[in-house]
Amino acid sequence: MTKKRYLAAPLLALSLLPPASTADEQDVIDYRRHIMDTLKAQTAALGMIMSGAIPDDNVVAHIDIIAATAATALKAFEPHVEGGDAKAEVWAKWDDFSARMNEFAAKTAAMAKTAHEQGKDEALAQAVDALSCKQCHDVYREKEKRGE
Amino acid sequence: MTKKRYLAAPLLALSLLPPASTADEQDVIDYRRHIMDTLKAQTAALGMIMSGAIPDDNVVAHIDIIAATAATALKAFEPHVEGGDAKAEVWAKWDDFSARMNEFAAKTAAMAKTAHEQGKDEALAQAVDALSCKQCHDVYREKEKRGE
Repeated sequence: MTKKRYLAAPLLALSLLPPASTADEQDVIDYRRHIMDTLKAQTAALGMIMSGAIPDDNVVAHIDIIAATAATALKAFEPHVEGGDAKAEVWAKWDDFSARMNEFAAKTAAMAKTAHEQGKDEALAQAVDALSCKQCHDVYREKEKRGE
Repeated sequence: MTKKRYLAAPLLALSLLPPASTADEQDVIDYRRHIMDTLKAQTAALGMIMSGAIPDDNVVAHIDIIAATAATALKAFEPHVEGGDAKAEVWAKWDDFSARMNEFAAKTAAMAKTAHEQGKDEALAQAVDALSCKQCHDVYREKEKRGE
């Protein structure tokens, strides 16, 4: 009986976890950080171009990279592994979090489509709306944890 | 005569500089760092998938992002602005540096093409050759400057 309970507990736990739960918890945290670091670096690069600090040769590439990365982000948060910069609210309010992430992916994809079909200036007009990073970070990301 | 020489020197210098040289020097350094940070984050994410630590849902996206970012990198080094993690060799050996960067862009583009046309496993077989980051970093990047 004791043995049966011992076996049942982890099996039940596994059945409740999302697919990626076999990965080590630190791996999950590191992986999503790589994705968010990419978004941070690419939006910073785009911002430098938008401000005129850097010539705009790469602007469409940056927009494409942001859109491609945004599309990978939600998957990285599916395993319920708290820690890193993520607040517990990510999973406590998963419906809202995932809706916002999907909206982010959709808006950045639309911006990339505009860049290819209408041009960079038309695409950049969508940037402020598409890259409303702070609205999510205020709710779902720990503040100042990484000295940022 | 003195005034003439004073004016001629910066004009001559400007004529020898690549197009992006009007940007502030720190902006140039920051911009190329954003691009290299993206490559670091995305190759780390890809490496986690290749090692089996993370499921491979996003693997084609990571390959696409690496290829798109690689294609932006050379432009970021065109302004001859020393500093950051870049060694002076970048500009002293520009022909070699730019040839390696172009090869990096070509190989990662080929890997992305393989991913879309033949599948992720075939693409990942090209990863070690396409992502030979260390060979360039050993020559052109300062060691341990950022504690890495």
